[in-house]
Amino acid sequence: MTRFAFTLEFDGTPFFGLQRQGDGPSVQQSVEEALHRITGEDATLHSAGRTDSGVHALAMRSHADIAKDIAPFRLMEALNAHLRPEPVAVTACEVVADDWHARFSCIGRAYEYRIRNRRAPLTLERDRAWLVTRPLDAEAMHEAAQALVGRHDFTTFRSVHCQSDSPIKTLDRLDVSREGDAIIVRTAARSFLHHQVRSMVGTLSLVGLGQWRREQVAEALDAGDRAALGYNAPPQGLYFVKAIYPGEETP
Amino acid sequence: MTRFAFTLEFDGTPFFGLQRQGDGPSVQQSVEEALHRITGEDATLHSAGRTDSGVHALAMRSHADIAKDIAPFRLMEALNAHLRPEPVAVTACEVVADDWHARFSCIGRAYEYRIRNRRAPLTLERDRAWLVTRPLDAEAMHEAAQALVGRHDFTTFRSVHCQSDSPIKTLDRLDVSREGDAIIVRTAARSFLHHQVRSMVGTLSLVGLGQWRREQVAEALDAGDRAALGYNAPPQGLYFVKAIYPGEETP
Repeated sequence: MTRFAFTLEFDGTPFFGLQRQGDGPSVQQSVEEALHRITGEDATLHSAGRTDSGVHALAMRSHADIAKDIAPFRLMEALNAHLRPEPVAVTACEVVADDWHARFSCIGRAYEYRIRNRRAPLTLERDRAWLVTRPLDAEAMHEAAQALVGRHDFTTFRSVHCQSDSPIKTLDRLDVSREGDAIIVRTAARSFLHHQVRSMVGTLSLVGLGQWRREQVAEALDAGDRAALGYNAPPQGLYFVKAIYPGEETP
Repeated sequence: MTRFAFTLEFDGTPFFGLQRQGDGPSVQQSVEEALHRITGEDATLHSAGRTDSGVHALAMRSHADIAKDIAPFRLMEALNAHLRPEPVAVTACEVVADDWHARFSCIGRAYEYRIRNRRAPLTLERDRAWLVTRPLDAEAMHEAAQALVGRHDFTTFRSVHCQSDSPIKTLDRLDVSREGDAIIVRTAARSFLHHQVRSMVGTLSLVGLGQWRREQVAEALDAGDRAALGYNAPPQGLYFVKAIYPGEETP
């Protein structure tokens, strides 16, 4: 068996998420079925992160073990051919060591959340960003966000469906910046809880709207209670942008 | 009658173009029908440029004359409500002088052409960029492009359907730059011929692929013959990004 690592880009709109779900199409199922058609094997795809329905990826990292003798470039090309017309693309493929694991070897994950802050409906970015029609103060959001950076119990910002062993995580970065009528939230950590990024962005949006004082974000964190959550931002603004592995790059 | 100026953003994918066509849906028809539902009037929409089927706009400028007494903000909101679910949005609306004309007063137009240069199919940018799977040399494209900047007879880069009085235009800018696997072509002029941007980009792509020497672009221009055209790039990579008017900003 050879372990192949893949870099996946996908539009999450038509999927129920990256990982297989009982109830609908998933990126994992699409890739595994394409692998089956190419190799005749029933390989399992493991990925650096899980994503919700509607969430996108610019560079998800995944792996699968394949017995068939095939060069990485050919496997990438065949996967892309078999994945059409679904909006999933393999942008890189390489052979990795047998103990390299897309999920368990991953030491850093980065997400981006895109908000458009304007009255007009979205056209080119429909399903690609969260439209907030009332004015947001991005500077206030950035300042409030800094209370979340560091090692904390993120229970407040965790889905009830979260499967993580512990709600304690170290958030390395949570930056909010405005570029015209776009507001971009960039965040990085070793790992995140389920819904953590969307919960943080949703809560920060209340600060941006002036409905919450900045200190209330720290208070919600300290509460350690999902009921203290301000708001869970919708999935279509969220992008998985990077997974980091030892030796590849420092997080 | 009051003249209203609109800034329009649209995804050109489902349209046969901005201007009304006999044979299919157009942005103009959508906006005029929305205006009719709001005002009961048969206003005509005039725009800074024409765009082909599949071409997008980030900030097209247009105008229409309306008799109904309505504030610009309310008109914008009503238009956006009536345009749903079509991918056309009015991002700004203001009252202008009766002699301000979206097309004839326009003294500068800017376009962007987006290429993704990679093997993998497009996912999030499907219908939003031109996928070129063989390696492109963006620097060579940029150097070759400079032969087109300035005042020239652009007959080579002109559609047979072009309605312009003269093929002589002054190209202010044609810059090609690479950002990762994206190649962006930025161009500006007082006005362009029909298909001019796509024809220039398509021809430059031949230089980028190494199929044409850089000097051949200048030779094709000098030929003044559509038959000397290298290639017409597809519409989905093209964006109308800006229209400039006297007093608003220098071009």
